[in-house]
Amino acid sequence: MIGMNNTAESSDYNMTKIIAINAGSSSFKFELFKMPEETEIARGLIERIGLGKGKFTLSHKGGRETIEQNFKTHTDAVNVMLEALVEKNIIQSINEIEGTGHRVVHGGETFSEAAVIDETVVREIAELAEFAPLHNPANLMGIQAMMELLPDVTHVAVFDTSFHQTMPESSYLYSLPYKYYKDYRIRKFGFHGTSHKYVTGRAAELLKRPIEELRLISCHLGNGASIAAVKAGESLDTSMGFTPLAGVTMGTRSGNIDPSLIPYIMEKTDKSAVEVLNVLNKESGLLGVSGFSSDLRDITDEARKGNKRAELALEVFSSSIHKYMGSYAARMGGVDAIIFTAGVGENSALIREKVLDSLEFMGVYLDEKTNNETIGTEATISHSYSPVKVLVIPTDEEVMIAREVMRLAEEKSSL
Amino acid sequence: MIGMNNTAESSDYNMTKIIAINAGSSSFKFELFKMPEETEIARGLIERIGLGKGKFTLSHKGGRETIEQNFKTHTDAVNVMLEALVEKNIIQSINEIEGTGHRVVHGGETFSEAAVIDETVVREIAELAEFAPLHNPANLMGIQAMMELLPDVTHVAVFDTSFHQTMPESSYLYSLPYKYYKDYRIRKFGFHGTSHKYVTGRAAELLKRPIEELRLISCHLGNGASIAAVKAGESLDTSMGFTPLAGVTMGTRSGNIDPSLIPYIMEKTDKSAVEVLNVLNKESGLLGVSGFSSDLRDITDEARKGNKRAELALEVFSSSIHKYMGSYAARMGGVDAIIFTAGVGENSALIREKVLDSLEFMGVYLDEKTNNETIGTEATISHSYSPVKVLVIPTDEEVMIAREVMRLAEEKSSL
Repeated sequence: MIGMNNTAESSDYNMTKIIAINAGSSSFKFELFKMPEETEIARGLIERIGLGKGKFTLSHKGGRETIEQNFKTHTDAVNVMLEALVEKNIIQSINEIEGTGHRVVHGGETFSEAAVIDETVVREIAELAEFAPLHNPANLMGIQAMMELLPDVTHVAVFDTSFHQTMPESSYLYSLPYKYYKDYRIRKFGFHGTSHKYVTGRAAELLKRPIEELRLISCHLGNGASIAAVKAGESLDTSMGFTPLAGVTMGTRSGNIDPSLIPYIMEKTDKSAVEVLNVLNKESGLLGVSGFSSDLRDITDEARKGNKRAELALEVFSSSIHKYMGSYAARMGGVDAIIFTAGVGENSALIREKVLDSLEFMGVYLDEKTNNETIGTEATISHSYSPVKVLVIPTDEEVMIAREVMRLAEEKSSL
Repeated sequence: MIGMNNTAESSDYNMTKIIAINAGSSSFKFELFKMPEETEIARGLIERIGLGKGKFTLSHKGGRETIEQNFKTHTDAVNVMLEALVEKNIIQSINEIEGTGHRVVHGGETFSEAAVIDETVVREIAELAEFAPLHNPANLMGIQAMMELLPDVTHVAVFDTSFHQTMPESSYLYSLPYKYYKDYRIRKFGFHGTSHKYVTGRAAELLKRPIEELRLISCHLGNGASIAAVKAGESLDTSMGFTPLAGVTMGTRSGNIDPSLIPYIMEKTDKSAVEVLNVLNKESGLLGVSGFSSDLRDITDEARKGNKRAELALEVFSSSIHKYMGSYAARMGGVDAIIFTAGVGENSALIREKVLDSLEFMGVYLDEKTNNETIGTEATISHSYSPVKVLVIPTDEEVMIAREVMRLAEEKSSL
């Protein structure tokens, strides 16, 4: 039994409520779960924290409502959220909340799994901000607000990087002077770990096979995109690197390029290295190639109308992913299933088809009809005779976070 | 019939002599061929041109000799070379030389094949120096020296990049703002084209199949290393990029890294972008990881003695290549043969074995015994039952250059 802050008996176990949180520098996204059923009770988004014209959108069984109100700090925002949950009868009292789970982008080499947050963990997350200067400090604001308002419950940090800490050196080490790894901790970290972990776990359930036997390629294709080679439930390699810029073409990110191009672009455009990096992060990818949008739906529409640059963006994007199918099959000595998830992965039959083009040689036979019919739902989109199964699995990072809170809170209370 | 500078009759056709040249900024390497037999008559290397303490090494049927002499310019060097060829009775007269072929590193988008050198071509090679500032100007020094001393013969430029000009946009375009391609010609060019063309052509001969039917992966593994996907005799994709820094781990080059690392290393080490690029080119790769050598032989020896960093360098190097096996098989919808060439590819059974590890899923079955016995010679090192053939083919860029001279000289004289 977890949580000691209410008068719960063991029969109350099913009443456990957990909030999964993803805090940005001016935003706060949450999802309230009833655990262990993993039932979503409410979800919401608070925007423009500290910026004026704040907005809080709350969705629950009773409907969806929007509150316009200014929030000076994350603590203000969380306060309003907790009050609203009680006011709308979503929970009886804030004491019902027995744990919070926080998405934290960077766990470095320190966190190979989720961690119960204490002062040391807070300090380490702050130190790791060096690797994720936009994200870790924002994530910490959410953590500190929740710890302030719910001081007695279990708070858990769930890291985007930790799932990939199982990668061997041959995957994570760059071919740079070794002292860069020793002195500056320069290595491949990988991201989207919570998503890759969720969908690969779910794939094993759907395939009805122990994950220990499976070689899986997980394609998390959203605005950010990464591919992971997951063998026996462990990340063996992934396409993102030291930062989420590396790997495949993304909405606005370039993915891998010849490193020589940075000094070259600096010279040609009279930009600093940091400015060029900004171009690589924000003006490249689908947006850069198409010239008009980072949104795959816009690009697909335009390509259908015959826009050549839109077609080109689709080709560049899908071929950058396509190559990883073979690459990661090689890395694992073959593949049992390929999984598509996140916005593009769940919804674009076109991209899935292009990514799986001509892979019969490695046992991939896509069922085009099922692929075309699958939008945002769990489905097997390979033919029944395909040795390699292809699955669409909507990701659920929030439920993974809630599970980690449950697991660690139980461990904690059983100590 | 080619060449108009001697009194050749058609019976003299077999007497055609062609020099293949690779000129560096202070060096001049050549090979003299009797064509079309492709017999090597002599080869030599002139070093330290313009630097004092010059040295000329000449090898021919009669033996090998070294001349120590200073060369002020490439023209001086070529002059001494031509005199030596006559003096040693390797040729009767310099008039026997009917053509020269020059390795030129960068042909940009201008040259999709070898070109007879005229003033326009010289100017274009000079303009393309922007992309290869260390190489094209040096290559031009060799060209200009030969044109000065042999004004009446056919001079041909053979480009490292031209073989890859068949790549489709989805291979050569980076996911950067499209204007970088339009305005600055930023794209993947690829290198080692002459070598990839030679070994894939030779592979078709050895396999006794028309090259139009073949899907080949060519691994040029020397101190520089690149992989090419060659379908129907045309380059479909290659691992090097805008420059020869990109792709796989090399002797001292990093290959691909997360582009974000450049600004990060700049900040950490207080280096400029150009200085970091220098580290990526000269202090990375096998040297960077091992910490002691860029030479695979040294590293292999040390790894055998149990040196962990040497083992790590081997792993990082071979896994960076290994991933391309799957990647390029995917790119071509399967593969018929994999070719190893250049120093490491021809001589290291260990690296070949690691690169081909666990590829049975795509039809690759290495014959370990034959692999271990193959050092620097043409051989099929896959099992007879292996659907994918694995070939070791010593590369011969010089003979390719000589062939291009023959072909273009014949075209020229038949106009």
